[in-house]
Formats: sequence, C-alpha cells, structure tokens
Amino acid sequence: MTKTVLLAFSGGLDTTFCALWLQEQGWKVHTVTVDTGGFDAEELTRIESLAKRLGASHRTVDAKARLFDSTLRFLLYGNTLRGAAYPLSVSAERSCQARVIAEVAGDLGMDAVAHGSTGAGNDQVRFDVAFRALAPELEILAPVRSLGWSRAQEVTFLADRGIEVPVKTSVYSVNEGLWGASVGGRETLTSWDTLPESAYPGGEVPNLAPIPLTLAFTKGVPVALDGDALDPVTLLQRLNALGRRYGLGRGVHLGDTILGIKGRVGFEAPAAHLLIQAHRELEKLVLSGPQLFWKEQLGQLYGAMLHEGKAFDPLVKDLEAFLESSQGRVTGEVRMKLYPRAAFVEGVRSPHSLMDPKVASYGEDNKLWNGEEAAAFGKVFGVSQLLSAKAGVAS
Amino acid sequence: MTKTVLLAFSGGLDTTFCALWLQEQGWKVHTVTVDTGGFDAEELTRIESLAKRLGASHRTVDAKARLFDSTLRFLLYGNTLRGAAYPLSVSAERSCQARVIAEVAGDLGMDAVAHGSTGAGNDQVRFDVAFRALAPELEILAPVRSLGWSRAQEVTFLADRGIEVPVKTSVYSVNEGLWGASVGGRETLTSWDTLPESAYPGGEVPNLAPIPLTLAFTKGVPVALDGDALDPVTLLQRLNALGRRYGLGRGVHLGDTILGIKGRVGFEAPAAHLLIQAHRELEKLVLSGPQLFWKEQLGQLYGAMLHEGKAFDPLVKDLEAFLESSQGRVTGEVRMKLYPRAAFVEGVRSPHSLMDPKVASYGEDNKLWNGEEAAAFGKVFGVSQLLSAKAGVAS
Amino acid sequence: MTKTVLLAFSGGLDTTFCALWLQEQGWKVHTVTVDTGGFDAEELTRIESLAKRLGASHRTVDAKARLFDSTLRFLLYGNTLRGAAYPLSVSAERSCQARVIAEVAGDLGMDAVAHGSTGAGNDQVRFDVAFRALAPELEILAPVRSLGWSRAQEVTFLADRGIEVPVKTSVYSVNEGLWGASVGGRETLTSWDTLPESAYPGGEVPNLAPIPLTLAFTKGVPVALDGDALDPVTLLQRLNALGRRYGLGRGVHLGDTILGIKGRVGFEAPAAHLLIQAHRELEKLVLSGPQLFWKEQLGQLYGAMLHEGKAFDPLVKDLEAFLESSQGRVTGEVRMKLYPRAAFVEGVRSPHSLMDPKVASYGEDNKLWNGEEAAAFGKVFGVSQLLSAKAGVAS
Amino acid sequence: MTKTVLLAFSGGLDTTFCALWLQEQGWKVHTVTVDTGGFDAEELTRIESLAKRLGASHRTVDAKARLFDSTLRFLLYGNTLRGAAYPLSVSAERSCQARVIAEVAGDLGMDAVAHGSTGAGNDQVRFDVAFRALAPELEILAPVRSLGWSRAQEVTFLADRGIEVPVKTSVYSVNEGLWGASVGGRETLTSWDTLPESAYPGGEVPNLAPIPLTLAFTKGVPVALDGDALDPVTLLQRLNALGRRYGLGRGVHLGDTILGIKGRVGFEAPAAHLLIQAHRELEKLVLSGPQLFWKEQLGQLYGAMLHEGKAFDPLVKDLEAFLESSQGRVTGEVRMKLYPRAAFVEGVRSPHSLMDPKVASYGEDNKLWNGEEAAAFGKVFGVSQLLSAKAGVAS
Repeated sequence: MTKTVLLAFSGGLDTTFCALWLQEQGWKVHTVTVDTGGFDAEELTRIESLAKRLGASHRTVDAKARLFDSTLRFLLYGNTLRGAAYPLSVSAERSCQARVIAEVAGDLGMDAVAHGSTGAGNDQVRFDVAFRALAPELEILAPVRSLGWSRAQEVTFLADRGIEVPVKTSVYSVNEGLWGASVGGRETLTSWDTLPESAYPGGEVPNLAPIPLTLAFTKGVPVALDGDALDPVTLLQRLNALGRRYGLGRGVHLGDTILGIKGRVGFEAPAAHLLIQAHRELEKLVLSGPQLFWKEQLGQLYGAMLHEGKAFDPLVKDLEAFLESSQGRVTGEVRMKLYPRAAFVEGVRSPHSLMDPKVASYGEDNKLWNGEEAAAFGKVFGVSQLLSAKAGVAS
Repeated sequence: MTKTVLLAFSGGLDTTFCALWLQEQGWKVHTVTVDTGGFDAEELTRIESLAKRLGASHRTVDAKARLFDSTLRFLLYGNTLRGAAYPLSVSAERSCQARVIAEVAGDLGMDAVAHGSTGAGNDQVRFDVAFRALAPELEILAPVRSLGWSRAQEVTFLADRGIEVPVKTSVYSVNEGLWGASVGGRETLTSWDTLPESAYPGGEVPNLAPIPLTLAFTKGVPVALDGDALDPVTLLQRLNALGRRYGLGRGVHLGDTILGIKGRVGFEAPAAHLLIQAHRELEKLVLSGPQLFWKEQLGQLYGAMLHEGKAFDPLVKDLEAFLESSQGRVTGEVRMKLYPRAAFVEGVRSPHSLMDPKVASYGEDNKLWNGEEAAAFGKVFGVSQLLSAKAGVAS
Repeated sequence: MTKTVLLAFSGGLDTTFCALWLQEQGWKVHTVTVDTGGFDAEELTRIESLAKRLGASHRTVDAKARLFDSTLRFLLYGNTLRGAAYPLSVSAERSCQARVIAEVAGDLGMDAVAHGSTGAGNDQVRFDVAFRALAPELEILAPVRSLGWSRAQEVTFLADRGIEVPVKTSVYSVNEGLWGASVGGRETLTSWDTLPESAYPGGEVPNLAPIPLTLAFTKGVPVALDGDALDPVTLLQRLNALGRRYGLGRGVHLGDTILGIKGRVGFEAPAAHLLIQAHRELEKLVLSGPQLFWKEQLGQLYGAMLHEGKAFDPLVKDLEAFLESSQGRVTGEVRMKLYPRAAFVEGVRSPHSLMDPKVASYGEDNKLWNGEEAAAFGKVFGVSQLLSAKAGVAS
Repeated sequence: MTKTVLLAFSGGLDTTFCALWLQEQGWKVHTVTVDTGGFDAEELTRIESLAKRLGASHRTVDAKARLFDSTLRFLLYGNTLRGAAYPLSVSAERSCQARVIAEVAGDLGMDAVAHGSTGAGNDQVRFDVAFRALAPELEILAPVRSLGWSRAQEVTFLADRGIEVPVKTSVYSVNEGLWGASVGGRETLTSWDTLPESAYPGGEVPNLAPIPLTLAFTKGVPVALDGDALDPVTLLQRLNALGRRYGLGRGVHLGDTILGIKGRVGFEAPAAHLLIQAHRELEKLVLSGPQLFWKEQLGQLYGAMLHEGKAFDPLVKDLEAFLESSQGRVTGEVRMKLYPRAAFVEGVRSPHSLMDPKVASYGEDNKLWNGEEAAAFGKVFGVSQLLSAKAGVAS
C-alpha cells in the first residue's frame, strides 16, 4: 500500500524538490504551509497552486495567534534576546510549525513527515526533535539532508521535470515571521563584514522626524498601541510596519548553533525589540528587585532552551509557569519616542506602581524611615562584610 | 585631645556644611577629594581653595586608573548593565572612593571618617559598609543624616558663617565620572515624565553624519581606539567625548535601591555603552556557548553585589576570578558605526575566532560532519525529549 | 480610648512577660497561639489557662494543615535543605504564624500586634517584615527588644506580680514543629563542640534492627506511608515519630543569620529528611535532566528567600508556580530502609518513569540508536569543544 | 606503512578484544593503562603481561596525583554530588585518562587512539570529545562500538585465538578509582530493585563501635587525617579504607546520561563523601552567605559539565578559577564521628572563623548592634515587601 507523508512546504527550492522527489520514491505526498507571519495572501495562493501542480494535497494553517500564545508571549515576559540582540524569531516559529504539522499529520493519518532541511543548520534538529517528541510513531524524512544534494542539483532535477523555481532577485536570503525577519548573505558568512542597509526588508533608513508611541500592557501582554485596543497579532503587525520605517530592531548577531559551530545572522525585528524594551521598563516599576534579577536569568534560560532545540523538554513548561506568575502586575502604559535607528522609553505608569511619591521618593526625605533608622540599617547591613574583612586575607 | 576626622569632600553644599559643622563640634577636619573622573583641573583647584578657606587640610587623589583596574574592567568583562541600561557608574565610584578614603585615613592616623550623605539614598550605605569593612577602628560620621537638616538649613548655617555656596545654574543634579554621568531632576521623581535632552551633559543631539569607529581589546581590556594605542583612562575619556557628541549611551533607568524603594535616574555613559556593546560582540566570536550563558548571569550578579552595597563581600573576589579567567581569549578588533543616538557593531575579528570559514560555515556544507551524521546527532539529541513526551501528560 | 494589641503567645517567659508589661502600659491585650506542630493538647490547655490568668483574651489556631499547604510542600518540591542539612523548619513556621496572627488581628480589629522577640535573632525580622507587609496599618510592638531586658529581669518582674514561670528542666532550648525541632545549647554557641544525643528530643539512639518503609507521592505530595493513605499532617506526624526512634534527620547546622552573623543550631527533623530523600529519588526517575538541574537551584533559592526574611517578596509566588509546575509527574512509590542514624532509598517506581527497560537500558543495546549513530552523535556533540581547543591557549 | 594506534587498555574483555582485532586490521598496537586508583600493583603487572602476550607495547601511567590536582580538588571545593549522592568518580577519571592518553599518543607519534567503549554509554562520548579536543589530528577507533558485537562474540573471537579472559566471579561489574567505586548489576537495570550489601566492594556492614575522625584542610585541600599530615592521594586511600569498613558513602543513584536515557548506578565512595561533608561544614564557618549560595550553584554546574562530556569547554577553567578563589580561607579542622552507615560532623574550627563569640553569638546580646538598631534594620529591610504588598493583588 502506498505510504503517505506530510511535507512541511514553503514553496521554495528545497521543499519543491522534496515534493517531487518523495513522489518518485513512491510516497503519497501531502503538503502543509504553516503561516507564522511570513507570507501574505498572494504568496499563500502561489504556494497552494504550486503544491497542486506538484501533485500534492495541500493545506494552509494560519498559526500566527498560536505562535504568540504558545511562545512569543513568554519571550516577551522574559525580555528574551539572545546576546542582547536576537529575538529568537526562527526557533519560536519552528517549534510552533512543528506542533501544527504533527497535529495535521495525526488528523490525516500520515505515515511520515518530511522537511526540507539540509544537514548544516539548526532547523533540522528542531524539526527532528519536535516530531519525535510529538509524534514518535511517524517516520521522519529529510531528503535534501539524506542525499546531500546541492541547490544546483535540485534545480536540475526540477528542470528535468519541467518545474522552474523562480530565481531569487536578491542575493540575501530572508526568513520573515511575526517576531521578526532574519537575513543571511555573503557578509554573514564572515565575522567582520556587515550587511548593507538595503539587505534588510526595510531597506535604507530615511531621515524621519521623531514620533511618540504609547504601548499598553495587561499582565504582560501588549493590548493597545497609541490608544487603539488590538489583538496581539494585529498589534505586532502594526508595530513591525511602524518600526521598520524607522530602521528599528536591526542588527547582526553572532551565535552558537546546536551543532557546535558559530553562525551569524542579520535580523530586523522592530516589534520584538520595541515590545521588549517597553515591557522591561514597565516591569522595573511593578516587580520587586529579586523578581527582576531572577526573571532575567530564567528568561535567558527560556530562550536558550528554545534556541538549542529543547522546546519539548518539560522544563520549558515550568519556566512558563514562573514567567506567567511574574506577570500578574505587569499592567500599565509605556511612552516611547522613536527616532531613526533608536527608540527611547520616556515613561511608564501602572496601577501597581512600586514608586509612590506619596510614600517615598528616592533621595528625598520620606515617611518610611528617618536618618537614624537609615544609619542603624546600614550598620546591621554591613555586619557580615565587617566580619569577613576581620577574618583575614583570603589568599 | 582633639580628635581628627577625614571628610570625603566634593566642594558641594553638603560636604561644605559638614566641614564647618564638624569643626564646631570640636573635630580637627582633614578633607580628601577622590577624583574618579568627575572633576577637571579647575574644579579641583576650586575645591582645594574652598577646603583651605574652611580651615581643613586637604588632599586630592587621582583614582581614575585605580577605578578602572579595581572595578570598571570587571563591569566590562561582565557586560554589566543594570536593567539592560544603567552602567553602575555611581556604585563603582563609591567603592573606589571609600577604599582611597580608608587608606588616607590610615596614613593620616585619623580617628574618624565623615561623609555628606543624607539618610535617603544608597551612598550612605555604601560608604558605611565600606568603612566598617576596611577600617573598623574608625568612627563614622554623617552629619547631614544625623541632623536631618534640609538643604535650606545648611545654606543658612553656612551663610551665618560667611560662606556662600554657588547656587546651581541648572535644575538638574549631575554626577560625572569615568564610567558615565547620572542625572536627576524633577522628572526623575516620577515614573512617567522624561528628562529633556538639554538636561544631559551633552545637551541636544545634533544631526551629525555617521562615522566609523574601531576598538581593539586585549584580554577584555580596551587598548586602542581607531588604531591609537591608549591607556584605559585616556581611551575612556576620548570615547566619552566622541560618544557624547552623538548622544550615545543615554537613558533613564528605574531601579531598586538598597533601602527598598524604587529610584529613577537619567544617565549619559557613552564610553561604557560603546565598550560593552563592542566587547559583547567580540566575546560572541571567541567564547563558547556555555561561557556566554553563564558569564551573562554572573556579570549581572557582579553588578548586583556592587549596586546593593556588598562590594566587600568575598564573593566579589570570586566573581572577579571567574570573569578574569573568561577573558583570556577576548582579544581582537571591533568595527562600529556611530549614528545620532544609535551605534552598531559592524564586525569583529580575533586570532582566537571560533568562526573559521575554512572549517565550517553555518548553513553550508562543512568538514566537521555530513548529513547522515547530523541526522544521527539529531536522533540521539532528541532521546530525552522523546522519553519525556512518552511519559504522559504532566498535569 | 484603650488601644488593643494582639500578642503572639507561646506561654514561655518572654511572651508571659510581654502580656503583663503591655497591660501595665495601658494596652488591652489579646493573645493568640498558632499551633504549627509544636504543642500537644495538654500544653495548649496550659497556655490558654495562663493567658486567662494574665488577664488576656485568648485564641488558639490549629495551623498545621495550613503550614503544609502554604510552605512545607514547596520546601519538599524543592528538596530544600539549607547547607544540605537544615530543613528550614523555624522560618517556615514563622511565616505561617505571622499570616495567621495578621488575620486574627484584622478579625478582632486590633490596633497593634506584639511579639516576644529579642533584638538578637532572625525571628524579630521575620515577624516585623510579615506584619508590615500583611497589615501595614498595625503598630508593631516588641517589648523585650525595646527594653533590652535580660531573662533574669523578666523573671523578677513577673515574680513581683505573683507569676512564676516554670523553670526549664533542660539546659537545651527546643523549638518543635511539624517540619522538625531545633535545639540550642551551650555547645551550639561554639563551632567546635557538639550536642550530646540526649539533647535531641529523641534522646540516645537505640541499636534497633533495620526496617523497611514505603512512601507514596501524588504530584509531589506524600499521600501514603506503608500503604496507609494519610493526609499530609498525619503522615508527617507518624513519620516524625518513626524516624525519631531511629535517630534520623539529626544534625548541627552552622548558618548565616539575617543580621549578618553566623549562628549554629541543632535539629531533629526525621520526616523532613526522609521525605526529601525519598522525593528527590522519585524525581530522578520522572523529571528531565534540565528540570533536575534548575529545580535544584530554584529550590535552594526558595529556601534562601524564606530564611532571609523575604517570604513576602512576590518572587516567592513565582518560585512556587515553577515548583508546582515541576511536580505534575512526581507520582509513584519509594522504598526505603531505615537503620539507626541512616536511611537508604532502595527503589522508586512511577507510571511516569523515564527509565523504560523495554525502550533502553543504560549500558545495554537499545532501540533508540545504534553504535554508528552514537559515534556520529559524539562527533557532532564535540564540535564546539574541538573548535575551542583549536582557538589557542586562553591565558 | 603500518599505522599505529594507542589503545586505552584495562585488561578486561573489551580492550583485550580490541588489542587483537586492531592488529588483525593491520594496526601496530600500543597499549596504555592509566591508573586513577583502580588497580593494585598485582593487577597492573597482570595487565602488562597480558598486553605483551597480545603483542602490544605497553605503558602504565600513575595518574592518581594528577587526577586529584586536575579535577577531584575542584569537585571537593564545589562539594559536588550529582543528585545529592553520586560523587562523579567515573567522569572525573575519564577526563584525566583521556588527557594522559592524548599526551602519550603525542609522545609516541601515534596515528590513532582507540578505546573499548560500546555505543551504549557515556564513556564513548567523553573519550571521543576529549580526543578531538586534545589531539584532533588523531583518528579515533572504537571497535566494539563500530562492530556492535556482543560480549559473547568477543569471547568467541578471543577463544579462537587462544586468549581466555578470566570469567568474572561476581555478577556485579565494579569500576574502582580514587574518588570511589561504581557498581552495576541486574538490580540497577531497574528503578525498583536494590543492590545487596554484598555487591559493594566493602560487603556486608559490620556492627562496629563509633570512632572519631579529625580532618584538616588548607585552602580547601585535605592535608591531615587524625593529625597525620598526608599528601592528598594517600589521605584519600586511607580514608577510603577506613570509611569502607563502616559502609559509608554508599548509595544508588539514578541519573541522566549524555545520550538522553536514564541510568542507575550503585556507588561506594567513602573518602569523597566524608571529605565533602567535612569540607562543606568548614566552609559554613569561613565563607560568607553569598559565597555559600553561589558556590553551591556553580559547584553543581561544574559537576554537570564534567558529567555531560563538556570537560573541555573553556567554561570549566572559568569555574575552576571561581572555585579556587573561594578556598582562600577554607583552612581549619573538622571533627567527625563515624557510625556504621552514617557519619556526623561534630565541630569545625578555623583561624578565619566568622563565628567569633567575642564579637557576637547568635541569639545573645552583642557588641555589633542593640535592640533599637535591630528594630530599625528590620523596618528598612521590610520596605520593599511592604511596597509590594501595597501594590495590590498580583493575579
């Protein structure tokens, strides 16, 4: 009996090749495109047509809201940026896509899942791990990796069968999603060269006048932009469009891959950067010092788990419980000012503010203690350091 | 016999008051000004004259190099920014100043040390703790805190004795040092208002054309700027001057004080921000993933210890040993581009680079593994998550 | 109008003194005894009579179940032992008692709360912090601390008023509760001397034959002992009685106090030690490696927050959310063997076991990978260390 | 030209097989036995004879002192026990052995290294990683893993060539070393069964009378046992012999393997357990609270790096720098009492003690503060929790 495979399908060279090649190996191929923010309607139509032309049954799933709910909001709660820069857009998308694909494969009663990853990058590991955790009964196929074919070989294979994949007009490869775009090119294969501004989706940054921006959060979730109440997906899309005009949230990150080598990637993630920047300042107003310190560590850990292909380790759920608990009071507004290439937080306010000028203002007299009490506090506070100093030189 | 006191002296209202008031209580007053980057030569001369006019023996100590060696370099090794923003300039200076003051007090055989802190802020605790740890035999005096006097009362006291303290021309109070300036004003007593650009030492940010900048590091220490080999102090001073013109390293931070309330402070710290940004990217090239992850946590801890008045806890030395060990390979160059209000790292290179395109480039075929090995890696790598998934629903 | 105060009352010297002294200062005194496991029925009756004799309205609150639910279960989830030894029994009790006292004070419409702490120890800080957080409108009184009176002065004061406090028959002071007893004496004032076995509530350890013990857990909570389903309080009481006979869970801990000095305390906590030992081994079977690593760190942090008087920092709730999430699969049985002074875990089993001999046994061939795949895994796994080694000597 | 291989040789079945099989594949085989405490003189002689009989050039290296200096002392500084139980003896030995083997291979100008690991366990990964990091130019051979042969197949192969490997007299496999023995058997393939006492090298535990023991440390290193100054290796050997008689340091640990499955192992490590227990209590006397908290976390991390095959990540050196720095004051004596199966620390003392009864004793009046100052301390200390409580309910 013919075995069936569900192919993660983006309509690019690798997955187009996989669709045909798998059929030639005797598989009945279904394709699925999981939209996590990287496609517009036209593109999705093109992908669907292509899938049909390749002889596959196709399904498109809009997973943008799910991406936010399942992962992005925790990255925001955690103010998570890899190396103080990269918002982990790709790893967040891959986990979410894998969940959807595993579910669709279950719905359709597939025998296997397939992805177009090569043997070189992180995504192969993320997909393999996810499929094994979520649907261990399915066979996993990765034809490009198994064959070790070059892109040129794939092009020839397809051309021989009358399929032409549109040649990219750019020398830069871009992966777009709700949490940002990643950009690779000749320069990112080195550590010293830099991407030109034109390589980013937003292109050259114009010399725009600064504008104000107000964001509102409820329990850590962004709920309004400049006073307009919006669902998170719409809010992120608007914020990406706005920030992109100002060249915000761009950079090049040099990071560690799951396979142990260093990799460099450009990114343009205005919404992620603006939201994290705003959210972090709001948290400073409403969270305690110990919360801020430990949430920072655990937010970084959350990002590391995701990035390193451990999204399905149960620790991830425990970290999510911690992060969610921490957001109970992260409600309020944040005023920002956007300049070309730079954004500033101008102020924050919250009904749960811990900075109450009626009670105490830093550096001013207050009702919570007097000078004598402060002196006594300092005296007792210093006891352990005094004793350590008296205990003699350590080395 | 007359008892002697060494007063930490800045020539401002509080310490001028202390100098006179202590003498009236029968103390023989010596003054010391520890220059950690906040004074120019003219200002130091003015302070010395004032001290003499007040009847005190005065000493000025240039502690800028010491500040870098004892503390700033570790803040740089750790890429330490409180709340991803504030470079901890004030707490670094206070620890260093306290060390110098305790030593001078020992040299001069003083009976006591005095500082001008009120009972409201962090500095009183930092000074008290430091003096108790470093010189437990000395009495500690803080007249403004003990008396609980207002600034107006101090002005009157001094005026009655013929001393006029120059009225500040600005409504903003600024504390400058090698690692940055802090700025306080009416706005920073709230969480919602923002400092105008004119409140920062650098003032309004002009619309300058972008310029390139190259920084070189040896074992984590900045050693050259645009090809000029410089000692750290000179390099920081030049970088502060350059960055200030571009409005770099500015922001407003809302943080936790030692006494438990929230406090907000503006800062302008171009050198600290540029160096940390550059240093962090260079580290991404030469440190391992586990080093980067844990150094980040411990760098934040180092900052917390300093900020929270625990600079003399022996843990600080242990963290310094960790941070110093981590810098053995942090040697290389960083290319940056400065725009108004924003700086970008364009590239990094190092003789210890872990990103060797001759061995492996991310996303490309490489000599370290093939597709089959990558698949096997992914399979074994996912075993624990597969087993966790099979073990059933957690809740 | 007479002001009213609720006094935390144990019936010992300090609180008996407080009851009378506060009345003489014009307070209307109510007393409350919060039972967290340290009193039997006879003792509670004696305390109630004493309170009435002293002229106070008295209330007794059984808070044992609440102590378990609010705090002890999280200490168990976190396997929390200070310094790998001390189960934090006293700090857990104090937080719970403070909660109850604050609620009773609210119910009764009190103007103040009072406690019998001196100025020397941790409890004063824990109580003060708790009352300020939970009932900031109440005045806090600590007469013994304010007066600085010695125990002899208190005895005289009471004797003058016809009250005799029973002279302790032991030279050791013992604080008992559900999570263990703490023991102080002449020896614990030094670091070198040791408590005799007779100083512990269980006394000399007899030479008993070993016995087996089986504990069952559901989601981290102990639910059965040797097959008997029990509520947590009863289970702990039985386990304390059993373990005490074997001299289990004893030790002397040298720790850091909130006020910065070192303190030493003996403890006898059989139930806490046996449960943590059993629970930890069960977790090894059902939690992932990353969960085990991070839960260990955060369990220690949870204990530190409690011990250091920060039980009301909101971080504590976030840590509880993390710990609770981690327990979803901690269901199963633990076989132990008790010897005099030592207990061993002999085996664990769980429906959520990650150690499935049908799938894979350590050191044996298995179905999850073959030798070639293991070699490939090892090769890729080692890539980052290979690159680091090639990058040259670090120092 | 004949290629040369250095085989890690223990004289057991697997490596005996490898020696012959490699020669039949055309390799010139050298053998090396790295003694990390698991062999007596007689055994080393037997191994040497066997190697010669197999036709290999043999070298024996005594690496016990090196094992202590390079790894064990850091495990002791860190009080490192996996899962509060297992002292990581095997992973410590493997790293050390790999270093020696790589050096010997370099000395002898070998073309390859070989080890007898199967594809099932941790050691294969540890060896592979170490050899790639230390000697990337060498080919790595693991014949048993490559062939996937069973032990029976190996026995037949050897018997066909006239080599008989002595049949084990025990059904338990034991790996002994300076830091303890590990024990595997039928029971450890399950989670529920337990090893009989007779399975441990020390056998049944006799009912001995308790004895005192005194250990002295200098900067964290054990230097004397009951007053006899000893080098670390001799001290560990004596302590292992003594503790073994009392059945100390035994247990069964269930842990996570590098390959993602759970594994269970018995261990008997009296010296490791006694030293860590003693060292930890001494540290409580001389280290600050923050040092104790963070050293605990980083000691566990150190163990995790070693266990997980990351001994050659540069983070390990940074952690060693931290740990070494922390030991400057860990000098003093520890009194213990050994009972069958249990040891207690009775007291500690140090010239760097932070518990100075002349300055302050816990729970007693002291010279460092009075009751009023303690009250003021508690008031200011509680400010942040008061503000958090006032800020309203979090969820």
